[in-house]
Amino acid sequence: MAIDKKENIKIIPLGGLEDIGMNITVIEYEDSIIIVDCGLAFPDDDMLGIDLVVPDITYLQENRSKIKGFVITHGHEDHIGALPYVLKEINAPIYATRLTMGIIEGKLKEHPLKPVKKKVIKYGQSINLGAFRIEFIRVNHSIGDASALAIHTPAGVIVHTGDFKIDYTPVFGDVMDLAKFADLGRKGVLAMMCDSTNALRPGFTMSEKTVGKTFDNIFTEHASHRLIIATFASNVDRVQQIINSAHKFGRKVVLEGRSMVNIITVADELGYLQIPENTLIKTEEMKNYTDEQLVLITTGSQGESMAALSRMAASIHKKVKIKPSDVVVFSSSPIPGNEKAVSKVMNELALQGANIIFQDTHVSGHACQEEIKLLYSLVKPKYSIPVHGEFRHLKAQADLVANMGWDKENIIVMKSGNVLSIGQEGAEIIGQVQAGAVLVDGLGIGDVGNIVLRDRQNLAENGIIVVVLTLEKKSNQVMAGPDIVSRGFVYVRESEDLIEEARKIVEAAVEECMKKKVVDWGKIKLVIRETLSDYLWKKMRRSPMILPIIMEVE
Amino acid sequence: MAIDKKENIKIIPLGGLEDIGMNITVIEYEDSIIIVDCGLAFPDDDMLGIDLVVPDITYLQENRSKIKGFVITHGHEDHIGALPYVLKEINAPIYATRLTMGIIEGKLKEHPLKPVKKKVIKYGQSINLGAFRIEFIRVNHSIGDASALAIHTPAGVIVHTGDFKIDYTPVFGDVMDLAKFADLGRKGVLAMMCDSTNALRPGFTMSEKTVGKTFDNIFTEHASHRLIIATFASNVDRVQQIINSAHKFGRKVVLEGRSMVNIITVADELGYLQIPENTLIKTEEMKNYTDEQLVLITTGSQGESMAALSRMAASIHKKVKIKPSDVVVFSSSPIPGNEKAVSKVMNELALQGANIIFQDTHVSGHACQEEIKLLYSLVKPKYSIPVHGEFRHLKAQADLVANMGWDKENIIVMKSGNVLSIGQEGAEIIGQVQAGAVLVDGLGIGDVGNIVLRDRQNLAENGIIVVVLTLEKKSNQVMAGPDIVSRGFVYVRESEDLIEEARKIVEAAVEECMKKKVVDWGKIKLVIRETLSDYLWKKMRRSPMILPIIMEVE
Repeated sequence: MAIDKKENIKIIPLGGLEDIGMNITVIEYEDSIIIVDCGLAFPDDDMLGIDLVVPDITYLQENRSKIKGFVITHGHEDHIGALPYVLKEINAPIYATRLTMGIIEGKLKEHPLKPVKKKVIKYGQSINLGAFRIEFIRVNHSIGDASALAIHTPAGVIVHTGDFKIDYTPVFGDVMDLAKFADLGRKGVLAMMCDSTNALRPGFTMSEKTVGKTFDNIFTEHASHRLIIATFASNVDRVQQIINSAHKFGRKVVLEGRSMVNIITVADELGYLQIPENTLIKTEEMKNYTDEQLVLITTGSQGESMAALSRMAASIHKKVKIKPSDVVVFSSSPIPGNEKAVSKVMNELALQGANIIFQDTHVSGHACQEEIKLLYSLVKPKYSIPVHGEFRHLKAQADLVANMGWDKENIIVMKSGNVLSIGQEGAEIIGQVQAGAVLVDGLGIGDVGNIVLRDRQNLAENGIIVVVLTLEKKSNQVMAGPDIVSRGFVYVRESEDLIEEARKIVEAAVEECMKKKVVDWGKIKLVIRETLSDYLWKKMRRSPMILPIIMEVE
Repeated sequence: MAIDKKENIKIIPLGGLEDIGMNITVIEYEDSIIIVDCGLAFPDDDMLGIDLVVPDITYLQENRSKIKGFVITHGHEDHIGALPYVLKEINAPIYATRLTMGIIEGKLKEHPLKPVKKKVIKYGQSINLGAFRIEFIRVNHSIGDASALAIHTPAGVIVHTGDFKIDYTPVFGDVMDLAKFADLGRKGVLAMMCDSTNALRPGFTMSEKTVGKTFDNIFTEHASHRLIIATFASNVDRVQQIINSAHKFGRKVVLEGRSMVNIITVADELGYLQIPENTLIKTEEMKNYTDEQLVLITTGSQGESMAALSRMAASIHKKVKIKPSDVVVFSSSPIPGNEKAVSKVMNELALQGANIIFQDTHVSGHACQEEIKLLYSLVKPKYSIPVHGEFRHLKAQADLVANMGWDKENIIVMKSGNVLSIGQEGAEIIGQVQAGAVLVDGLGIGDVGNIVLRDRQNLAENGIIVVVLTLEKKSNQVMAGPDIVSRGFVYVRESEDLIEEARKIVEAAVEECMKKKVVDWGKIKLVIRETLSDYLWKKMRRSPMILPIIMEVE
């Protein structure tokens, strides 16, 4: 057993191991720390009113002086989205490939931040950060310029795959650099941290190019209709393929949705897209063309309520009105949790007569079981550390690797905050640092927590009843009230009798307190709360939040 | 055109055509009304705090004297669940098959209701209700004793399929009575109201029996582990197949979950289940058996937070503790909207080491495209009225039927509340009656509506700030306050400065009102609301609900 041996390094994931999202991992050796990715998560259903979730970086704040930089694998929100929040506290250089950096720069512009050093890295290039040398390695994914990392440490090489799939016929660029992984494997790899998202799925993920063929078919079959295609803004290759089909079939392309325009503009400027001249037109120019000359590429494939497609579906989009002859293609799968929202948008579009297509128009960006097995065969890491997924995804990768013959002791399923000490002589979880979700609500970061959320949940389900009462300071006699005001409880107009009855019951309880000379306001509030709560439960089987407020006059 | 001709009947769906759930349809001729099904819906995500949703029955209340009875196709909640609520207002006889009636009786027992007449009908049997003769016809579905209805009216025959699939190898009972449908078709059918749930899916729905084979495989492969199988309580045939496998492999069966025990008890008493002697044991008796001698059949396959399986997963089930050697089978598909909840339960089970199986362990209870086409070929209705589904499902059936050669004018996609006048000479929507969703919260039926829900949404996302102020009646001077109390807004302890600053700003605004001799409380409240709202938006980008309360003392 190697309990924090001198030559060991530490691997500390600060997020990303319980849910999809919020990927951030600390690699530490003596006074060197690098941070792999810095992602956000989208709030769970029970995080009411929360805009987004970022990782708890207490550990980074406590070890600020060691931090050499952020190394970023690719430009998806769950890998870069927390940067604007974390950079406020930790101003360290960012290293990423070109498109990834372009997307990061676009994102940082929207936040007031001190300048931060940024360095674009090419595939195959290495950088030295403190005790580490980090190589960026080409992988395929649903966004361009995605990298795996080979992190050369004093304890050995750590391979971090980032998010990946193997695409033998990529739309842009080359196939994942399998030779490099084989080379690393030959020389010896201590551990591989490998994407688990699709570890429950047998087989291989299809090539992005298969979707291009489907687009060609759709363009052929629906040649006389206007086409509206919704997809992820960050899937530049998908957009490229729609543009290819548009060009082939003589259609003009309109981009709709802020993130679509932003990311495609960046990708175009950086040369990650080939847009034939005179293909792209502005939304305003649509009127100069007939339906069969147009294809719209839009955000909103996840049913996001404010996205362009959702606004079209709800007939509140200012510039695009759905026609009964439109063909709307969902080039996406609903992310778990978004199914009902997507379904709602589809129904609204169908109600306006649009023809909806959602089959065979999407492939995943993550490796399935055969790809994961291939990568393990090439890299042959001593230790397997499944990452990026919910627990059952990590477990599925662990089972897969165990079936390939890895010793179960060398397969390490970690939790966020675990401190793994790892080296040639062993690997062990030696501790736990503070880690978890920090909730962002408006400009507030972390000022909403469990108590506030519990109150919001209670308010959401039952509403609130405020009971106000004014007492005279000297005599402790009731000067005004009790008055009752409710919100989110019942239709007040139709329930006047109920509210009045409740008021009388509270009034009687307060009088009883006065008779008994109760002077402790806490006790009076408790009596109000219990009396009203009992009454409402018996009468209605409901438990609104009850908020007694006592005021005092001289 | 036949605008409400004398011989025409009216078809008025009061629900079930916009979302899955809340199926209820009025068939009317002169002074006769029958009601086909009386289902509830489960609340949408934005119906905060709502327990369930029942149909608006204003139309039934206004036509109470005409109502001859409820004819119920089968015992699922979306077809019977509103009965306890509707019967309070409309005491009319219920007609249903035996198992359906058994489930209805179990349900009605839980509600204080006046006695209601109930009549069990057999397949092939007819009943006369006012101007109508109704035949119950055997169909297959994911619950036993499901019926289609042939409603003989003065205007012609209406076939209502209820929910159906065609199962050539049913677990219990016979194949759907295709000959009867053919017979009706030969004699002439005016209209068919047909299940659209799977109208987007090509092909045929697999037989329930295929799941039995999967169970046998699972029992063989995991012979040395305890098996826990989650499924729908109402899927009696599914439970029968688990019992069959248990018997074959020498395991005892434990039922877990209130609805599972209730429905299986009813089904067993009525002879819809064959349980070999000494197979069923109580949860308490589990300790007398080894893991390989046990299979638990449980509720919770949809991740419902209070269901037995969810309690086991969260380690709060009193009698069953998950072991690392357990094999948990999800014999179900997540209903849209439940995906994340199911995923959460799976992760919790996996974290405790359980092995999770969810593939090939479920088949749908609804007809796919080929089955729908077969039924139309047999019944050959003059008019097609797709029912049971979201709009795009209804539309998919309409497209399917149009492709089979039906005249588009004879395919009628209705909305809830539409009044369809239909007869041999034509069909036309001639009006609209009140229809929609009535929300049930606790014992309150309909006392929560849009305004209350909007308040709950606002409270949920932003919390509430109450500002209280006591004024003297005569002088209109401030006697106490303004005080500020918040809930669901921020951590109060860590935001004391913010709250105090907000209080001072409100205080200044109120003083300004006093100076200006504003006596209108409405205006003072408006000033408080606007001042505080501006401040919080600028400072925090948040918009809590602001509730100013003014009290008055003599």
